[in-house]
Amino acid sequence: MFQTFDDTANPALGAERASRLRAELKRRGLDGFLIPRSDEHQGEYVPPHAERLRWLTGFSGSAGLAIVLADKAAIFVDGRYTLQVRSQTDTSTFEPKHLIEEPPARWIEDNLPKGAKLAYDPWLHTIDAVARYAAAAEKAGGRFVPVDGNPLDAVWSDQPEPPTAPVEPHPIEYAGEPASEKLKRISKSLDGADAAMLTMPDSIAWAFNIRGGDVSHSPLPLSFALLHADGHAELFIDERKVGDKARAHLGNIVSIRPQADLAAALAELGKRKATVLVDPATCASWINDRLTSAGATVKRGADPCELPKACKNKAEIDGTRAAHLRDGRALTKFLAWLGLNAGKGDVDEIAAAQKLEAFRAETGKLKDLSFDTISGAGANGAIVHYRVTRGTNRPLRRGELFLVDSGAQYLDGTTDVTRTVAIGEASAEQRDRFTRVLKGHIGIATARFPEGTSGSQLDALARMALWKAGLDYDHGTGHGVGSYLSVHEGPQRISKLGSVPLKPGMIVSNEPGYYKTGAYGIRIENLLVVTPPAQVEGGERPMLGFETLTLAPIDLACVERALLTDEEADWLNAYHARVREALSPGLDDATLAWLKDATRAI
Amino acid sequence: MFQTFDDTANPALGAERASRLRAELKRRGLDGFLIPRSDEHQGEYVPPHAERLRWLTGFSGSAGLAIVLADKAAIFVDGRYTLQVRSQTDTSTFEPKHLIEEPPARWIEDNLPKGAKLAYDPWLHTIDAVARYAAAAEKAGGRFVPVDGNPLDAVWSDQPEPPTAPVEPHPIEYAGEPASEKLKRISKSLDGADAAMLTMPDSIAWAFNIRGGDVSHSPLPLSFALLHADGHAELFIDERKVGDKARAHLGNIVSIRPQADLAAALAELGKRKATVLVDPATCASWINDRLTSAGATVKRGADPCELPKACKNKAEIDGTRAAHLRDGRALTKFLAWLGLNAGKGDVDEIAAAQKLEAFRAETGKLKDLSFDTISGAGANGAIVHYRVTRGTNRPLRRGELFLVDSGAQYLDGTTDVTRTVAIGEASAEQRDRFTRVLKGHIGIATARFPEGTSGSQLDALARMALWKAGLDYDHGTGHGVGSYLSVHEGPQRISKLGSVPLKPGMIVSNEPGYYKTGAYGIRIENLLVVTPPAQVEGGERPMLGFETLTLAPIDLACVERALLTDEEADWLNAYHARVREALSPGLDDATLAWLKDATRAI
Repeated sequence: MFQTFDDTANPALGAERASRLRAELKRRGLDGFLIPRSDEHQGEYVPPHAERLRWLTGFSGSAGLAIVLADKAAIFVDGRYTLQVRSQTDTSTFEPKHLIEEPPARWIEDNLPKGAKLAYDPWLHTIDAVARYAAAAEKAGGRFVPVDGNPLDAVWSDQPEPPTAPVEPHPIEYAGEPASEKLKRISKSLDGADAAMLTMPDSIAWAFNIRGGDVSHSPLPLSFALLHADGHAELFIDERKVGDKARAHLGNIVSIRPQADLAAALAELGKRKATVLVDPATCASWINDRLTSAGATVKRGADPCELPKACKNKAEIDGTRAAHLRDGRALTKFLAWLGLNAGKGDVDEIAAAQKLEAFRAETGKLKDLSFDTISGAGANGAIVHYRVTRGTNRPLRRGELFLVDSGAQYLDGTTDVTRTVAIGEASAEQRDRFTRVLKGHIGIATARFPEGTSGSQLDALARMALWKAGLDYDHGTGHGVGSYLSVHEGPQRISKLGSVPLKPGMIVSNEPGYYKTGAYGIRIENLLVVTPPAQVEGGERPMLGFETLTLAPIDLACVERALLTDEEADWLNAYHARVREALSPGLDDATLAWLKDATRAI
Repeated sequence: MFQTFDDTANPALGAERASRLRAELKRRGLDGFLIPRSDEHQGEYVPPHAERLRWLTGFSGSAGLAIVLADKAAIFVDGRYTLQVRSQTDTSTFEPKHLIEEPPARWIEDNLPKGAKLAYDPWLHTIDAVARYAAAAEKAGGRFVPVDGNPLDAVWSDQPEPPTAPVEPHPIEYAGEPASEKLKRISKSLDGADAAMLTMPDSIAWAFNIRGGDVSHSPLPLSFALLHADGHAELFIDERKVGDKARAHLGNIVSIRPQADLAAALAELGKRKATVLVDPATCASWINDRLTSAGATVKRGADPCELPKACKNKAEIDGTRAAHLRDGRALTKFLAWLGLNAGKGDVDEIAAAQKLEAFRAETGKLKDLSFDTISGAGANGAIVHYRVTRGTNRPLRRGELFLVDSGAQYLDGTTDVTRTVAIGEASAEQRDRFTRVLKGHIGIATARFPEGTSGSQLDALARMALWKAGLDYDHGTGHGVGSYLSVHEGPQRISKLGSVPLKPGMIVSNEPGYYKTGAYGIRIENLLVVTPPAQVEGGERPMLGFETLTLAPIDLACVERALLTDEEADWLNAYHARVREALSPGLDDATLAWLKDATRAI
């Protein structure tokens, strides 16, 4: 199984660990230290040895930061985790703060003593973040200083070793473009820089057509790379990860160097007075410091792989269609099983998540889940980033909604899908809310738009039916999704903040929702791929649009037909007909009967 | 009459005037000169003596720039004016260029000879523009130099005098807030600056509760002002404009100084080492130069009056409602007259515009039109910023659409409204297009949205019905409108670029359209006011929304009912019922009968 349901947090350990850390800081003449959740790559998933924030505080969320001073400490988390942090963390040791409303920089300004040295590990913070904290420390009359060697690692006695999962070549039938071609393409896009520093493992995986297994849920080979303007590339990686097959694959296109060589390579760039493209939003401050002190010019700009990686080629799109067909059949078997079994008392959130994983495993192609399944019954469904544990586990009761947000990693594609189903009957209010969410979902799914349109221009289409009823949801409508890579990737998104134009081949989620705290949650999520500009019959200008990739029934028991326009009902019926036609082959009779009913026209 | 229909341009004069200008430049040792359409205030309307671009080139559009070098010259206009510039300008003297696609800075880079001195009048360019052109001149190996005294003025023998229209106090019943209160409020918002430089006449008019008459269509008193952080204000103005009544009104709140004193006042700020807030998007470079050379610190930021001016108070909103009721009745009388008379051969675009102005004048309250009426029949309707002249005038023929975009200035409010009507019957294609435009209009009119939502998030609601048919329009959906002030004001707008959150009291136009070049144009425009956050029945979060201000029938002969959802038809019927109820009182029998039919439920 790729998911566990243990309560990992033990708040009781926090005080002792904080005091061990403080002793180490004192020994080094430091007055404080920053412990971010991030590792050297700023990714969403980090390997066990980099779970420093969790080890210190108990907090297991996917984003956060602790600051430990001699006499006080705080932990900063965003709105998703304000409740969770209080249950996982000893709040008398680490005072919980809201990452956005009470940002760390302001806390530093207010709490750092004059003359104090606040330390940070320059591998774990981005250039932008270091600048922000340094300014805050200066305002407080203190200093923000990098450390050589993380003091927390020094006191974490049983810290795991860094991962050494083998690197696998990603077959050309799924990648669709040889790494050599990608490198040629990217090296020509450096806009005058002599080299680009790649620090995002998914950029590296994409550029070199490799995959790895260093973190859970994303097939990432943790490593760094330099891509030179002449097309030559260097991969800095723990060489134990590179077996013969990977070496043969990489041999012709890239120099494989030990990760420890990165410092020397940066020094060499400095000696050559090179201009190096660096993404300030994701690059570790350490790299920037080395480059500038060696004499290189740092050119700030987006990771040059980010946009090309986001625009999937034909092989990737064909692959994701195949992955979604397979995944949709597994999910639909689960939904049918749920329809036939839930609400009788013996299905709970954990059992449901396990059953769903089992259906996915049955495909014989499951490489991993793409994230821990969110399996939320009743009030738990209202917790947007809920992770079920044995402590929170809840049976699926009749009269309640059940929200299941899940996804899988297959060699040919990454999926991410949410369905909300009524266990028994849905209430009139629940049908009203569900149908408004569905109207928003259809608004995005059926949108057409000219080139240059960004996600921020479309986001309101997903919300208007809720807004008109005085309702909303506090998350974006859509995020980018990788191709057997990260389930969250940029630069595109459908949200107020999505300023990047949507381009053909981009995969993006469509997941409006509604959450009633303490009662129920609703989310309807399909993945979409942006279709190329096409003439509309009788039209004048080519328009982009979306093809829905995800194939699984949307629970009709939650739909209030009268709230849908005819056009919206037509979309739902056509989608369900497509789902039925695509998924029927090979289903057993009971599941097939369930599917036919679940996808009936309304 | 506030509008003329003469063809003012005479392309034949351009060559001779350019050569006179070149002789003057040579005399001064200059190699080139920039002639923008702007005056010292960067407003949309400029007084006759500042129509330098028109005098030199013949081009009468509302935006543009000419560059005259010793051996060549170019004129830059945006997409609205690419056709017009060719008919008004001697293109062998002034080569027409697209302002966005072939920007002046690039032309300077490519054409300015090495070592050449390209001159500009620092009163007529913003800080930002000067920086841009200076960089371009430097790239070409030349210099960009300010002149003292405009060389074009030296050769414009019959240049008119600057205007001296009297300043009028704007009554508190319409302004709603005493100028003293406004100044107190604004002076507290300077964010650490010692003073704010006000250069936009509408900001000054708003802040001091005065109006003027120095330009057509906007009641602006051209002047400058300094607002000090202690609440004290100085108005720099040609004192001939300030009569006893205005002096009495301004006496207690502001020092009135001759415009020539501005230089001394800026020098004084420099001596005090003051920090002065300056809007780089609108402030003349001359002012910035004086401040910095005198030793003041220039703090770049938005004009501090812009946002408060945009958020209308209760008196202003009540005033605009009254203005729209009056204006709607005048427009409706015109539409009825059109319905009863057009298409018989004797109504043409000019006659229509004159008749409409006459109905507005009949109200007894008309101060001015808020812009030259766009009166476009058939193919002329497809020209977005069409201005009818005797040369272009066209009869309103049966079987064609007629687009009329017009507005008025009343003491209590500024209006701006577009209706498109079928003369006789509309074709199926025209009804399809019109109805899609109407769907977009209704999408905006009925929107609800949380605080913080900007116009760029709503713009797609106005376009989606067109986008789905492969159609679009090449202008924004909405602009801000003043209160007996400019018909175009910021900072809010509904467009891809509208990043400013919409706030209660903001007035904004809602004007989607569709244009088929050479055939017809469609635009449906109402003004809206943003309503305060309110609870929706059964909802959880307060939502803003729009109240439609404009009252006039939308031509049902152009509406294809089957394309509307029931909800959209409900809106149209409710709007028409409201129009009928509001406008009926006092109408003659024939007009009333026409109105009843025009506003029937569908």
